Amino acid sequence: MSDKDRVLIFDTTLRDGEQSPGATMSHDEKLEIAGLLDEMGVDIIEAGFPIASEGDFAAVSEIAKQAETAQICGLARANFKDIDRCWEAVKHAKRPRIHTFIGTSPLHRAIPNLNKDEMAERIHDTVTHARNLCENVQWSPMDATRTEWDYLKRVCEIAIRAGATTINIPDTVGYTAPVESADLIRDLIAEIPGADEVIFATHCHNDLGMATANALAAVAGGARQIECTINGLGERAGNTALEEVVMAMKVRGDIMPYFTDVDTAKIMNISRRVASVSGFDVQFNKAIVGKNAFAHESGIHQDGMLKNAETFEIMRPEDVGLTETNIVMGKHSGRAALRSKLKNLGFDLADNQLNDVFVRFKALADRKKEVFDDDLVALMRDSSAEQANEHLKVKFLRVICGTEAPQSADLTLIVDGEDHQVTATGDGPVDAAFNAVKQVFDHDATLELYQVQAVTEGTDAQATVSVRLNEDGRIATGQSADTDTVVASVKAYVNALNRLIERRKMGQVGYDEKTVSYKDAG
Amino acid sequence: MSDKDRVLIFDTTLRDGEQSPGATMSHDEKLEIAGLLDEMGVDIIEAGFPIASEGDFAAVSEIAKQAETAQICGLARANFKDIDRCWEAVKHAKRPRIHTFIGTSPLHRAIPNLNKDEMAERIHDTVTHARNLCENVQWSPMDATRTEWDYLKRVCEIAIRAGATTINIPDTVGYTAPVESADLIRDLIAEIPGADEVIFATHCHNDLGMATANALAAVAGGARQIECTINGLGERAGNTALEEVVMAMKVRGDIMPYFTDVDTAKIMNISRRVASVSGFDVQFNKAIVGKNAFAHESGIHQDGMLKNAETFEIMRPEDVGLTETNIVMGKHSGRAALRSKLKNLGFDLADNQLNDVFVRFKALADRKKEVFDDDLVALMRDSSAEQANEHLKVKFLRVICGTEAPQSADLTLIVDGEDHQVTATGDGPVDAAFNAVKQVFDHDATLELYQVQAVTEGTDAQATVSVRLNEDGRIATGQSADTDTVVASVKAYVNALNRLIERRKMGQVGYDEKTVSYKDAG
Repeated sequence: MSDKDRVLIFDTTLRDGEQSPGATMSHDEKLEIAGLLDEMGVDIIEAGFPIASEGDFAAVSEIAKQAETAQICGLARANFKDIDRCWEAVKHAKRPRIHTFIGTSPLHRAIPNLNKDEMAERIHDTVTHARNLCENVQWSPMDATRTEWDYLKRVCEIAIRAGATTINIPDTVGYTAPVESADLIRDLIAEIPGADEVIFATHCHNDLGMATANALAAVAGGARQIECTINGLGERAGNTALEEVVMAMKVRGDIMPYFTDVDTAKIMNISRRVASVSGFDVQFNKAIVGKNAFAHESGIHQDGMLKNAETFEIMRPEDVGLTETNIVMGKHSGRAALRSKLKNLGFDLADNQLNDVFVRFKALADRKKEVFDDDLVALMRDSSAEQANEHLKVKFLRVICGTEAPQSADLTLIVDGEDHQVTATGDGPVDAAFNAVKQVFDHDATLELYQVQAVTEGTDAQATVSVRLNEDGRIATGQSADTDTVVASVKAYVNALNRLIERRKMGQVGYDEKTVSYKDAG
Repeated sequence: MSDKDRVLIFDTTLRDGEQSPGATMSHDEKLEIAGLLDEMGVDIIEAGFPIASEGDFAAVSEIAKQAETAQICGLARANFKDIDRCWEAVKHAKRPRIHTFIGTSPLHRAIPNLNKDEMAERIHDTVTHARNLCENVQWSPMDATRTEWDYLKRVCEIAIRAGATTINIPDTVGYTAPVESADLIRDLIAEIPGADEVIFATHCHNDLGMATANALAAVAGGARQIECTINGLGERAGNTALEEVVMAMKVRGDIMPYFTDVDTAKIMNISRRVASVSGFDVQFNKAIVGKNAFAHESGIHQDGMLKNAETFEIMRPEDVGLTETNIVMGKHSGRAALRSKLKNLGFDLADNQLNDVFVRFKALADRKKEVFDDDLVALMRDSSAEQANEHLKVKFLRVICGTEAPQSADLTLIVDGEDHQVTATGDGPVDAAFNAVKQVFDHDATLELYQVQAVTEGTDAQATVSVRLNEDGRIATGQSADTDTVVASVKAYVNALNRLIERRKMGQVGYDEKTVSYKDAG
């Protein structure tokens, strides 16, 4: 490494993050998130697990073609078929990377039933094969923090000799603590022959709440690549959060003399997008990206209260892309003002897109006195959700509900261009309306998540509704925003169904199948 | 200290947590949470800031009277009036503690405009005064991690000489990192005369995502008290999460040889209650208490997938009180089954309470095929919410909504025993219904938060609605659950209004005033 102080950011939102049950993203969403990651200066994007499904393969291939500067990486288990398939997907990238792994801890060695020597041989063969295809090969001993250190050194050395250029040390179950994390990396680098020729990476999980500290401790121990996800998305308690490690190194450069290429002002925008497409909301008190993370966001008027903002703030909101100027738009705002506002919010629109959004904006401004930044973000989300192939579309809805049962819904639903009119009852307006949809378009998907949030303050606020459906492990999330909660609910439900239909067509496997294949490290 | 390995748990959910904008709890809620903390084995409960308001004073006094084993602590700034008022509240406890603080960093010294010597004298005088009232005195140099180490040692020594028995080192702005946190405590204990006679405590904030690691590092450095909150509730990115530090020490006892008296099986229940009364939901991927934190919770059927659960789990769900047995209740379930079920969920009911809940349970079972644990928890929350003094009560509601505006609501609202019938329109069913309420009971409170979550899966799920109102800085949160989202919304709104009325009567100050007084350390 020519520059010891640079830490590479390896984002795995689209692979380890998307693996989180329920966070499954559509093809277009993956491309969009990859574009934002590339733009914000992430060094390596792990775009998926190509052999897991046709959908994953297609997404990794497209992302590889689209990427401007980031390296594009795909995941592969320790076998030639996985590695070949991974290469087929990533080879389109300007800077492709193959990431192959095997579980090396005693518990994980037992699954493919390999003894230490057999596993070592497998590692040698698979890394060699990967390196014959691609110059840029990352290798990971899964569950490294619970692997015997001696064996870990032995297999890392084998991987390096076989041609791995990055050695990633995963704390797969979120088990380690900072001192241990630093010691492990320091020891590996000191004792493995050839360690100075490769980059060591850290991959932490947050099960005990220490993923950020563990990743930064690994850097102190000599790691120069951090694997992380936006919002800490990921299985169980998630992965190291990109925004936390990047901002910690920026704010505490005095004791952590490292830098990354990430443009931190792009953090808030991508955080909002990932929350939206995954359906995983960020809690108010989440570090860096939570609604309350900055004092000025939390309803306290600092200016009148404090003599000096630094007294309670170690970062400026604008450092992460939170602009304080929440200029209110209204029904008299013009097209140019809308375009400029949207550009500030990170949406750069072509003329025809702007026209469509402007019509929606006017309709909203007619119903709502003040249109805030967050209202516009919701409007943009809604437009992009509806751009998904529309097999089903809500034409008319009228619901009667209240304390006296039954609640009823009159619905006109357009299915592939044809109107269908029905009336249904149910327990509550949402149940009644969903029953009406189901009467027209029957399906077996179960509702796994239903969530409503007001976008801005006030009783006339738009509500954003997230709906997650599960059809035999095939998961689809839909969202919609409207000042009428019930209308937003039905539209979100219909969006989710449209995505489910797309997914059926793409032959995307259910989540459970994909998970099984992950664990089978043979 | 006779036992070097015991770490005291100091919970400040009711003080630093409740200080979080919007998290304000009612008197009864504070008493309930304090009871749960006491029962779970927390060593010290910081119950409030007695001089901040009559409401805070009353809550601290009542909690002091009620506590069985926990020490009850109140906060006081560095002046005699604050300390006297604090003592008046905590003196009722079996084991009272006064906690007094002053900001010692250069930025904080500038606020009361004291030079180093003047501040040292103030510290001496106020700690002496506190110790004359109470044998158990905690002192904190606020913003310690940004205070010059030399000055910090000087003032800590003064506080110890003046009689402080606990010295708490706050990382007020969440600025430190683990190595630094451990070094600071180690250095203070090594160099301050008399340090071995007192307990050092750590108080961390999560602005850079490292509060848990920083607190545990401080323990490695010699601290034997951790200040924390349930769910990491607190200003900005919150405080150290109790559940994370306690579970980390339990799971990693091999490298962290400490123990606490916390009964970890009570974690999930109190986490749910704090989320409910504060209106601060926990994100899916929150460590320990998030919906996805344990693999078995996330829809993956482990048994069929893994040969050994330990492969991906370092804690058992039952360690934190997540029981796997989600026995479904239905319309044929009897009173005894309900009582036993509720007991398992942490609700121990008297006969008359059970009767009321049983009626509600039957009504719910009539509308919903399967009643799950989470449905019952929502039902219990709803009952307790309605037990608040009911000035307003919803008698009848009928709402018409849908894609064709305007949406309208017919409402009969009982105000102090008298029926009022109105019709109102609005943008959406919730706006229409809220307008109807406002037409009967006019007020100036603004709607700050509106949030709906399905309690269980399926379209007939109950929805829990949280509503937060702000009236000149006086904040009230209401919640309700119903299978009809619109009915739940109006009931939550009315609950919030009932609480606001109570708060007006109690003379509870607005949040902003309280905050100003915090910062004014003079």
